Amino acid sequence: ARAWCQAAAQKLSGGIGSKLCGMRLIMGAFHLLPALDGDTKTMTFLQEVVDLLLAYIVESFDRETKVIDFHYPNELLQLNNWELQDEPATLDDILISCRATLKYAIKTAHPRYFNQLSTGLDMVGLAADWLTSTANTNMFTYEVAPVFVLLEYVTLKKMREIIGWPDGRGDGIFSPGGAISNMYAMLLARFKMFPEVKEKGMSSVPRLAAFTSEHSHFSIKKGAAALGIGTESVISLCCLVLVQGFVPFFVSATAGTTVYGAFDPLIAISDICRKYNVWMHVDGAWGGSLLMSGRHRWKLDGVERANSVTWNPHKMMSVPLQCSALLVREEGLMQNCNQMHACYLFQQDKHYDLSYDTGDKALQCGRHVDIFKLWLMWRAKGTIGFEAQIDKCLELSEYLYNKIKDREGYQMVFDGKPQHTNVCFWYLPPGIRYMEDKEEQKKRLHKVAPVIKARMMEYGTTMVSYQPQGDKVNFFRMVISNPAATFEDIDFLIEEIERLGHDL
Amino acid sequence: ARAWCQAAAQKLSGGIGSKLCGMRLIMGAFHLLPALDGDTKTMTFLQEVVDLLLAYIVESFDRETKVIDFHYPNELLQLNNWELQDEPATLDDILISCRATLKYAIKTAHPRYFNQLSTGLDMVGLAADWLTSTANTNMFTYEVAPVFVLLEYVTLKKMREIIGWPDGRGDGIFSPGGAISNMYAMLLARFKMFPEVKEKGMSSVPRLAAFTSEHSHFSIKKGAAALGIGTESVISLCCLVLVQGFVPFFVSATAGTTVYGAFDPLIAISDICRKYNVWMHVDGAWGGSLLMSGRHRWKLDGVERANSVTWNPHKMMSVPLQCSALLVREEGLMQNCNQMHACYLFQQDKHYDLSYDTGDKALQCGRHVDIFKLWLMWRAKGTIGFEAQIDKCLELSEYLYNKIKDREGYQMVFDGKPQHTNVCFWYLPPGIRYMEDKEEQKKRLHKVAPVIKARMMEYGTTMVSYQPQGDKVNFFRMVISNPAATFEDIDFLIEEIERLGHDL
Repeated sequence: ARAWCQAAAQKLSGGIGSKLCGMRLIMGAFHLLPALDGDTKTMTFLQEVVDLLLAYIVESFDRETKVIDFHYPNELLQLNNWELQDEPATLDDILISCRATLKYAIKTAHPRYFNQLSTGLDMVGLAADWLTSTANTNMFTYEVAPVFVLLEYVTLKKMREIIGWPDGRGDGIFSPGGAISNMYAMLLARFKMFPEVKEKGMSSVPRLAAFTSEHSHFSIKKGAAALGIGTESVISLCCLVLVQGFVPFFVSATAGTTVYGAFDPLIAISDICRKYNVWMHVDGAWGGSLLMSGRHRWKLDGVERANSVTWNPHKMMSVPLQCSALLVREEGLMQNCNQMHACYLFQQDKHYDLSYDTGDKALQCGRHVDIFKLWLMWRAKGTIGFEAQIDKCLELSEYLYNKIKDREGYQMVFDGKPQHTNVCFWYLPPGIRYMEDKEEQKKRLHKVAPVIKARMMEYGTTMVSYQPQGDKVNFFRMVISNPAATFEDIDFLIEEIERLGHDL
Repeated sequence: ARAWCQAAAQKLSGGIGSKLCGMRLIMGAFHLLPALDGDTKTMTFLQEVVDLLLAYIVESFDRETKVIDFHYPNELLQLNNWELQDEPATLDDILISCRATLKYAIKTAHPRYFNQLSTGLDMVGLAADWLTSTANTNMFTYEVAPVFVLLEYVTLKKMREIIGWPDGRGDGIFSPGGAISNMYAMLLARFKMFPEVKEKGMSSVPRLAAFTSEHSHFSIKKGAAALGIGTESVISLCCLVLVQGFVPFFVSATAGTTVYGAFDPLIAISDICRKYNVWMHVDGAWGGSLLMSGRHRWKLDGVERANSVTWNPHKMMSVPLQCSALLVREEGLMQNCNQMHACYLFQQDKHYDLSYDTGDKALQCGRHVDIFKLWLMWRAKGTIGFEAQIDKCLELSEYLYNKIKDREGYQMVFDGKPQHTNVCFWYLPPGIRYMEDKEEQKKRLHKVAPVIKARMMEYGTTMVSYQPQGDKVNFFRMVISNPAATFEDIDFLIEEIERLGHDL
């Protein structure tokens, strides 16, 4: 099998080319299924692609491999012929395109890829995604997706049980990402308070106010802009005031902010929401997964009081992109809010239980099958497997925090131990470390992270994010959601930042 | 190779079980990568899954196979253990779950699957989707998706050229389905006329009116409801009147309605839009692909006058789900409308050309990579390959239309030759065919299609959609987007409808 790996690796680099079973793929796509006698050719072609993918996967987990073979956009445009043509290409050509695409892709499975909240590549999740693509169907009805609709039902119920809603009752949907999940929540809150908004629009509604924490995700504002509420109606929770003429309808508490990984106090917020009879949403896109950890779920105490919760398994649970759930406490509301009764899809005289035709509660018409990868991973790991994986990531971030908090040349961006895996810090190269002019130091420091990051990408050794925030100059935001990362990778990251930034 | 196919088929039915390379998969997911020495085990496991998928694919194209092994929801729940557990399962168990999922899935690649506007399974598209899952990244920045961002740029430009915008200039995005693409269009139209709506919401805007054709897709109303415009503001194009106090801002012309496949007269509509200075959107989710056909693109004459166009390659072009594009004529508008400047994602001091960081023009934050399958298929077929595939589907539907329009027991739902592949018809079983009481006949006829459809699913021989529309009782809507379908499959469909409905 080791020999097989080597052969596969060689194939990825083009060594074997596209010979398999002694057959050269000089034909075109029109020789594949549904072509007559296309089955052998199809299997040969697909197996060729799979061999490339398997080799890529093995390579991605190898620390000797670069995370990225970086090229500037104009360079990359010239490194391959990416143009679309009138004439068909040969299958050989298609394999070359696949190889080129993989060559310049980011290896998101790499143990040293820390750039986003979604990192790593789960093998069972990947297998499930391949199956999903092969099944190639849509979530709108039981008729066209019987198994997936059932699995969505089973999984959403399980997630609601974990949130703490009695018997897992309630509603929910898998949506194309946390921003859309948050937008759904805002939409439901508005509809709950003013059901006539569906027909009459905002002309029937007073000016609304939505409250959210200072560091909440930008999707709350995007949602308010899209829904005709306006970004001016999104008011920072730190200044929770009743603005004259604005009716509060929605509070979005954040469980795990994007940059700091901070958790809002959900119980206190729920008290306010109850007092003013306002919809309480918990944006747990990033932090929601901590509900699966016995050790960390206290950070979300009070989540069961929420009216809705966003929870993205594609982040801390490492489910392949994308997989985002919105969970809703009240049953039936989503359907009432969003249904339009398209009778070509949701015929009322079908021969099976229509409660499984869940498509009309979505904003989308066609909806991608995002459930199977989560479901299959859950089966493979069990709840305890997810818990262990999440706890390990938090352990790694604690290790990082402890390692740098008193280390020379480092400054932490916020006080105290991080609540999630976000460790935010500045690295001060020796050249600016002892500067007396603090304003000048700040100016110089602002340029350090972007240069180190650019060098990381050019060397391809690791990737980690940076950003400014408020009056704070550029700092690194290290996050750990990658199940492949180890203590050694954290050590490597520190050494690499120092190696690449030492001269700045 | 034929022997291999048989072996694979046997494997699918559980014959070989999960032996491969002499190794039994009694281990769990935690033995796979990133586990130490997990590479061989990982490749063995993934190869097992791929073998199942390859066998499933070959089976799906076989007309002797059922399109669906149908079970009612409560039955299906009991046919397998679908529950999520605390403890991990073995990889053997995972393979069994995959097998069960495939067993009860709809074979959407089957040559006789006609149930939705998206049918069929393209082998190059599938390979591309497997690669996309393996690359497991997000579209927000060039940094994390360099190749895919470039390919989206190349492909959107090509699509705009085909629409007919000078030099392919303009903007666009791949969104999670046609409903969201249409919602984007409405959002842009409102922002174009009233840019202050972004901050101030609908309170700064008069009551709006959107016009659309009578048989337009329900997503126009869903969009209006979500955006705070209200469904009452969506006015049927047949009654284009200026309602007092409502400001017209948006016209959605449909190029290929969902049920009839009808095309609105785009040139006439564009004249009205110009006169009243209203945004013209063309919902070509279903019919847009006809732009690739020299023979049929005249049906969209005038599309180049639109401000925006929805075009779903996952329908007539048979790209795996999902793949929907919104094309926009004006550059920069999407960015202005939707951007929120999240500085943790869109750092302004990066080392590459930031115009490739397109994420901020989306409503979504993370965005699934939907481009690669379309791009790779386009390479494999060439523009001429897509054209041939689309033309063939239209030929098949013309064949069907000619075959049944004067056939005994059939009545067409609308007059004249279909404009798209939608053929809408009633089948009248002999028992009601000659009834004198037309009201009673109508009542009986209404029940015919649902029963035939239920029987189709129980036998698993084919699947085609039906619905009522307005005062028209249930009729079949046959659509052909499946590249695997042949003239013989059309013949089969007719025979099957008669076989299953003869006694009704």
